Amino acid sequence: MGATFSLPPGSMIGVLGGGQLGRMLALAAARLGFDVTVLEPEPDCPASRVSARTITAPYDDAAALEDMARTCQVVTFEFENVPAAVVDQLEAFGASAAPGRLALATSQDRIAEKTFLRAQGLAVADFAQIDSVADIAAALPRLGSRALLKTRREGYDGKGQTWVQGPDDAEAAFARISGRPAILEAAVPFTRELSVIAARGRGGEIACYPPGENHHEDGVLRTTLAPADISLETLTQAEAIAGAALQALDYVGVIGVELFEMPGGALVVNEFAPRVHNSGHWTLDGCQVDQFEQHVRAIAGWPLGPTAPLARVEMTNLLGFEADDWARLAADPDARLWLYGKRHAREGRKMGHVNRLRALA
Amino acid sequence: MGATFSLPPGSMIGVLGGGQLGRMLALAAARLGFDVTVLEPEPDCPASRVSARTITAPYDDAAALEDMARTCQVVTFEFENVPAAVVDQLEAFGASAAPGRLALATSQDRIAEKTFLRAQGLAVADFAQIDSVADIAAALPRLGSRALLKTRREGYDGKGQTWVQGPDDAEAAFARISGRPAILEAAVPFTRELSVIAARGRGGEIACYPPGENHHEDGVLRTTLAPADISLETLTQAEAIAGAALQALDYVGVIGVELFEMPGGALVVNEFAPRVHNSGHWTLDGCQVDQFEQHVRAIAGWPLGPTAPLARVEMTNLLGFEADDWARLAADPDARLWLYGKRHAREGRKMGHVNRLRALA
Repeated sequence: MGATFSLPPGSMIGVLGGGQLGRMLALAAARLGFDVTVLEPEPDCPASRVSARTITAPYDDAAALEDMARTCQVVTFEFENVPAAVVDQLEAFGASAAPGRLALATSQDRIAEKTFLRAQGLAVADFAQIDSVADIAAALPRLGSRALLKTRREGYDGKGQTWVQGPDDAEAAFARISGRPAILEAAVPFTRELSVIAARGRGGEIACYPPGENHHEDGVLRTTLAPADISLETLTQAEAIAGAALQALDYVGVIGVELFEMPGGALVVNEFAPRVHNSGHWTLDGCQVDQFEQHVRAIAGWPLGPTAPLARVEMTNLLGFEADDWARLAADPDARLWLYGKRHAREGRKMGHVNRLRALA
Repeated sequence: MGATFSLPPGSMIGVLGGGQLGRMLALAAARLGFDVTVLEPEPDCPASRVSARTITAPYDDAAALEDMARTCQVVTFEFENVPAAVVDQLEAFGASAAPGRLALATSQDRIAEKTFLRAQGLAVADFAQIDSVADIAAALPRLGSRALLKTRREGYDGKGQTWVQGPDDAEAAFARISGRPAILEAAVPFTRELSVIAARGRGGEIACYPPGENHHEDGVLRTTLAPADISLETLTQAEAIAGAALQALDYVGVIGVELFEMPGGALVVNEFAPRVHNSGHWTLDGCQVDQFEQHVRAIAGWPLGPTAPLARVEMTNLLGFEADDWARLAADPDARLWLYGKRHAREGRKMGHVNRLRALA
């Protein structure tokens, strides 16, 4: 592509997926004068109500993809489980898709992802490919008495994963993930979960936001505190990890890299998401250029924006019926409230988030 | 209405006018989980591309107004020249309109506006009602050898106004404004132009942003520096002026009050705009809750947000072809760029603005 790819304001940006990430991408695109077309199978999705155009069709609908390719100057994704064939089709129809096929394909398959990360010299949990109960039994002695079994594909927010409590649990555990192709990961005795949100532009330039400290509940992100209180060595490591992944993937856009901090500060990579990331929502109120504008800048071939924090932010997800508490949150002068326009709350569903600003440490 | 009027997220907010102010209102509404319907005669307007629904019709189209009243839980305006009859029709169809008829009607007519402000005990320029050349000749001895002639209605950005250079110029000056009903204002020997952006909620609570210092070129706002470097006395005066106007108008929403600072710091009110205001665009990057979210909060019956500045901001309008410089501005890490999605630049047309952050004084 090179640095000459630079979309003028007024260009149309295509987004596959119309949830909250697509919605916040559309809002950021609008600030820079871009229009957005959303492709989403569900009618009345959150992003559709802030976008110039919505195509309601399955993600792999050929006519819809041809339409996107014809009318959008660049196409991007709010989620990583876009079939690789969709990217191929988009590109066959002449679209520019960012991030590209390699990042999507790698992140979709936990075996490919871990293999890729390890090939970059990055620390990951020991793992084994699992296609049968026998594979679990064979791998356990190496990975530890207790190990984490995850489906290779389509797991998110803790779905599709279960702990194998020992050899006796192998058969039951495999049944718990419906016997699907899987990965078995050694337990990582981490002290904290961190993440780094980073971006790579069309010219190869890289910008990292300061890492955040994440707290999960039942596999779902509950809070992020950013910038996290980490040592300079850990910061340098996190930036090096993000940079290595972005470079090796020839990536364009924003990536979210989930990290485990070990006793002593060394980092182990958990996984990456080839998109804007829930743990980067703090940047909406904590940075001059938030992760959504940064992603738009990157895929549009614009220069990346500054990533220095203006404040320390505590981000809390509003899950399910917690968003019904909007009146109290709106009255809290300390809380910046973001609501996603979802019509129906379900337990655990991400309905919004709150950013609370603190002074920088 | 009282404090019991509180729209839940998911409610529809109607906006008359689809320009940049409507667009930025729609973006703010979306952050809080609201949807927006825009009524605008011009197709493909800036706000339409970030709104759930657009009605393309004249502002006084009865069917369109009935539709807005039926589908929107509150209706607001991005400009002050909405005919009073439109507000009446909206209310007759059952809509809640904010700000109300009184604020719109008062601000539409410069004689009514000055008379209203003076009745609140606020300082305004001496003025006279002008319906003929003879009225100008009669008023000049009182107002000074040189005075400012403005059409009573529909002037903005310096349009519909001209200096009367003396008695000999009376006839020509009246011709320059096409002999329309007018006001003649004494020259105000001010040292600076300031403005204060303030909001009043459904419960009568008031919140003021710190005043900004404005610089105009050819009658059009060029820059705002906010918070302005003013004395505590001037600040107190500005807040008192805004408060008095909001209270007397039983106002709901954001208002922009333009002020002249006299030698010594006394303030003279120039005019007010019953809407979000160009000189409040600095709040987009300088405050936790910007003027657009503040307006949405007020009209939705939500508590007002904090107005303390996080930074000092220099806002510069991008007029006409200046927005073609987007690539340079996008590369400036110090510039927060806002573009309005207007399809065609015209000389002097507001195409976007840039906020530059400085440390607070």
